[in-house]
Amino acid sequence: MEGTAEKRGPAATVAAERLAALRAELDRRGLDGFVVPHADAHQGEWMPARDARLAWLTGFTGSAGAAVVLGATAALFVDGRYTLQAEAEVDGALYTRCHLVREPVADWLPGALAAGARLGFDPWLHGLDEAARLDTACAAAEATLVAVDDNPIDAIWADQPPPPTAPAVPHDIAHAGKSAADKRREIAAALVKQGLDAAVLTATESTAWLLNIRGRDVPCVPVALAFSVIHADGTVDLAIDPAKVDDALGAHLGAAVRVGPPDGFGGVLDALGAAGRKVLVDRAVTPEWVRRRLSAAGAEIVRGRDPSALPRAVKNAVEIDGMRRAHVRDGAALCRFLAWLGGAGGAAAGGELTEIAAAARLAEFRAAGEHYAGPSFETISGAGPNGAIVHYRVSPATDRRLEAGMLYLVDSGGQYLDGTTDVTRTIAIGAAGEEERRRFTQVLKGHIAIARARFPAGTSGSQLDVLARQFLWADGVDYDHGTGHGVGSYLRVHEGPQGIATRPNAVALEPGMIVSNEPGYYKTGAFGIRIENLVVVVALDGPPGAEREMRGFETLTLAPLDRNLIDTALLTADERTWIDTYHARVRDTITPAVDAETAAWLDQATAAL
Amino acid sequence: MEGTAEKRGPAATVAAERLAALRAELDRRGLDGFVVPHADAHQGEWMPARDARLAWLTGFTGSAGAAVVLGATAALFVDGRYTLQAEAEVDGALYTRCHLVREPVADWLPGALAAGARLGFDPWLHGLDEAARLDTACAAAEATLVAVDDNPIDAIWADQPPPPTAPAVPHDIAHAGKSAADKRREIAAALVKQGLDAAVLTATESTAWLLNIRGRDVPCVPVALAFSVIHADGTVDLAIDPAKVDDALGAHLGAAVRVGPPDGFGGVLDALGAAGRKVLVDRAVTPEWVRRRLSAAGAEIVRGRDPSALPRAVKNAVEIDGMRRAHVRDGAALCRFLAWLGGAGGAAAGGELTEIAAAARLAEFRAAGEHYAGPSFETISGAGPNGAIVHYRVSPATDRRLEAGMLYLVDSGGQYLDGTTDVTRTIAIGAAGEEERRRFTQVLKGHIAIARARFPAGTSGSQLDVLARQFLWADGVDYDHGTGHGVGSYLRVHEGPQGIATRPNAVALEPGMIVSNEPGYYKTGAFGIRIENLVVVVALDGPPGAEREMRGFETLTLAPLDRNLIDTALLTADERTWIDTYHARVRDTITPAVDAETAAWLDQATAAL
Repeated sequence: MEGTAEKRGPAATVAAERLAALRAELDRRGLDGFVVPHADAHQGEWMPARDARLAWLTGFTGSAGAAVVLGATAALFVDGRYTLQAEAEVDGALYTRCHLVREPVADWLPGALAAGARLGFDPWLHGLDEAARLDTACAAAEATLVAVDDNPIDAIWADQPPPPTAPAVPHDIAHAGKSAADKRREIAAALVKQGLDAAVLTATESTAWLLNIRGRDVPCVPVALAFSVIHADGTVDLAIDPAKVDDALGAHLGAAVRVGPPDGFGGVLDALGAAGRKVLVDRAVTPEWVRRRLSAAGAEIVRGRDPSALPRAVKNAVEIDGMRRAHVRDGAALCRFLAWLGGAGGAAAGGELTEIAAAARLAEFRAAGEHYAGPSFETISGAGPNGAIVHYRVSPATDRRLEAGMLYLVDSGGQYLDGTTDVTRTIAIGAAGEEERRRFTQVLKGHIAIARARFPAGTSGSQLDVLARQFLWADGVDYDHGTGHGVGSYLRVHEGPQGIATRPNAVALEPGMIVSNEPGYYKTGAFGIRIENLVVVVALDGPPGAEREMRGFETLTLAPLDRNLIDTALLTADERTWIDTYHARVRDTITPAVDAETAAWLDQATAAL
Repeated sequence: MEGTAEKRGPAATVAAERLAALRAELDRRGLDGFVVPHADAHQGEWMPARDARLAWLTGFTGSAGAAVVLGATAALFVDGRYTLQAEAEVDGALYTRCHLVREPVADWLPGALAAGARLGFDPWLHGLDEAARLDTACAAAEATLVAVDDNPIDAIWADQPPPPTAPAVPHDIAHAGKSAADKRREIAAALVKQGLDAAVLTATESTAWLLNIRGRDVPCVPVALAFSVIHADGTVDLAIDPAKVDDALGAHLGAAVRVGPPDGFGGVLDALGAAGRKVLVDRAVTPEWVRRRLSAAGAEIVRGRDPSALPRAVKNAVEIDGMRRAHVRDGAALCRFLAWLGGAGGAAAGGELTEIAAAARLAEFRAAGEHYAGPSFETISGAGPNGAIVHYRVSPATDRRLEAGMLYLVDSGGQYLDGTTDVTRTIAIGAAGEEERRRFTQVLKGHIAIARARFPAGTSGSQLDVLARQFLWADGVDYDHGTGHGVGSYLRVHEGPQGIATRPNAVALEPGMIVSNEPGYYKTGAFGIRIENLVVVVALDGPPGAEREMRGFETLTLAPLDRNLIDTALLTADERTWIDTYHARVRDTITPAVDAETAAWLDQATAAL
């Protein structure tokens, strides 16, 4: 369905003009080519509008990709999720299409670059490892990789949006659960232990977590654009637009945080170099610009992992409690929506309700909740065949009616001051077919296997992944996405380093980590199924005779699973018990938080199987 | 029990003399220290006696470890399996003990070496990656790593055994299933595809597989000591003691294989360098000596994986068929043993049978089989608490009687011209306790979950590992070893690159690969349980509606599981069916191959649950 997506990018003539303008600009600068990634300086999943250079240039609006523009040729790199969308949005005469994963930019370049060519790149927009790959690729072609001082697209993009100017605000300790001073102290101690003098934090959520600040600079993630350097003495240099910092925030930050403007960030790095400091940078997300500046100034660079990533992933008791409370409000909103949709004579009954209208109604219910600050990602609202598109984003051109016999898949989440939610439910509109019920039940069995898993300390999510897939595999089917991703606390809805996926990931699941549990099944052109709850890792008391320190999951998300889609003949007694117990908990927790009509619906929706 | 192990090494005074002699030798050479790994030039799991330098020097006879001798201090590095054994065998006054995994040699060195020190190492005995780690460690201490030309231990080891001289022989195409010419052609084509000119093979099983030759130079593995270089034109340079190569073998090798003596190997590498060749070496097993020689000669070195490893792991139809036939003979031997042991009035009934006597009897039964060429590893024969020692090796000092109420664990295997076996059975001597039956049944459920697994093409063994552990985890217990290792075809009983383990391993399980399926449970001081069958990966026909190319396992090993240890109340209907079906197959296949008494026992042992 993505193939018929609305063209959000420029018309083909506009794209041709922009490409020509870029080539002229490159020519003026003595460059033979330029790399245009879908990225900002923070390697964020969501970016400010002014950083949407790839979309502006090519018309491609997907959430991952890159382009390389050379003198005579240009190529667009997208992954399998976006093949059809790229065909619809981008003129194939202007851009050859390549597979971002199977033939990434660095693999493609050696065959495309002429010996002696000068390929430009913006060192702010590429992480260290990626920049190293580009460098190797250029060397293989006997070409030169040239870091530009300012992005040539910015020079030709007349109406490029300005940087966002939303104020940053303190994140209340009542929600954060730990003071910024304590966090600074702990990260500093970790640096000292590793013999490091400082670490550079360039991911917006890292600075937000460390200093207990939030903002509104990008969609869906409550962060302010900022860079910071944390020193082994526990002090921080924070580079942020001064307009975002009012007196209250200044007082919150305190004297140990030295606030300076973004263009002072280079000077902070220079000072580290001048003092011969040993500085930790993140291999994946730190911009190459930072490495070059540090290196030029004489710093000793250690490539590792952002030191805030793991402490941020392990939520404290206050954050977990906030997550639980946010999930009650979120569950109430979702239950009101599901009751409205599927109750007796509900909105879906007439066959006129559309995906966009449904998503809008869900957003209204959520907005009524305390501490609500917006969606945590763009809602996926897919009926029938649209539900089979894993990263479906509804548009007026694709908007479908929810009709009898369809499955309706809705994946949505909210940002609340006390937590971040992400939930998927799949609903039968009218009667469900036998195949749909079999697959739904297999997905549900996998979901339950994760929810009920007990595992020794030290176990990673990769080790558990098969538990979610085994019932589908028995039928020779599968799903092509991870089973679970980490989730931030009033931060990004996708945060590592933990996860549950087929791809190896050695990070142990530690008590306090939050991950999604979201197996699915997708039949192209027919229907999609996904069942997603968030879960938090907890320490378990072993049964008598237990010899290991054991872990398990507590499910946070509270909303009924569609009983019409469950084939009870496929369930074990333990699985039935899990569903009934979960449903009873949903009913008991959500009923006091909703209106009488929703409560009545909930009573039926959570009845024992 | 290892703590009371017989001291196989020298008495303490001998060890002190040898250590002093080594220090004097190092002094003569101007070295401040030397690294003594448990390794030969082939990084083999089993080595010729002359390479047992670590055991000769320190007295430690375990299968993995290292020592570092400095002027005033010396340290022995062993892993958790060997902590007790090292304490029993090695004088703590001479050697500080370190943990090989938690504090490997390269981590320990920087704190132990003085600035300016010269640390010697034998570049034949360290793989590339390990040598690089040693180099980094020395650099961190401002010390120098010095490659010695000849090993200083050889200079002081007066009665060091000579190199083995067993003849090498052709491995019949009737067992190998593919000619050496075809293998050479295929590996050469793979080299060409990667733009490589040659690859160096230093693992003995690699040369054995490539050229279809076998030998008797090391225990348990039917290989000849040899190095080879395969060129992109499909020809091979083979470095091997000429005394091992008779006319028949020469004819088998043919004109495309240039045979030279071991001391001509350096010249082969020099020629690659002189011609500016691009040469593949294995990062883990290629000796550092090879890299230095190639590098000095001017070759371009590509660090990767032994190109024979994956093709060798994927058995051809003839090898798989041979494996099946070898397993019938091996199963017959094991069933005769189990009947002798546990039949009415069996050998174990009197309480006088010991672990050594039992193992000896099993070896006799195996030796009667066609194509038998010896054990594939040292039999683990452990009664009661000895069964809880995962790598138990029985000795006269530890030899226990099999007494009523004990579990008896026997892990053994054979080398046959047509296949390699590895099987573990756990037997109740007399009546079994409730705890033993519960744990045995949980281990068995895990074993069955692997045996019955269906998974999509591309799935690795790491992804499946949890299936074997889930039932133990539910009770808060686990086992500290992998679930399965690859197995060679009349080669090494432990061969990668595939495996089933908690440790991430991205190698997909491809049809034709053989792995063990061996979950277990060990209660220290009480009992050990392991159930091990070999399985071969097969392509499955999916059920109707299957959308993926699916894989599964065919079990090769044929011997009953002790019905007295199975708590049927813990089994699902599917699990009972699997056991009954497996037992019926064992009975039908083995009965024609054994005597009447064994057949009668087998009939009872394989009765439906």
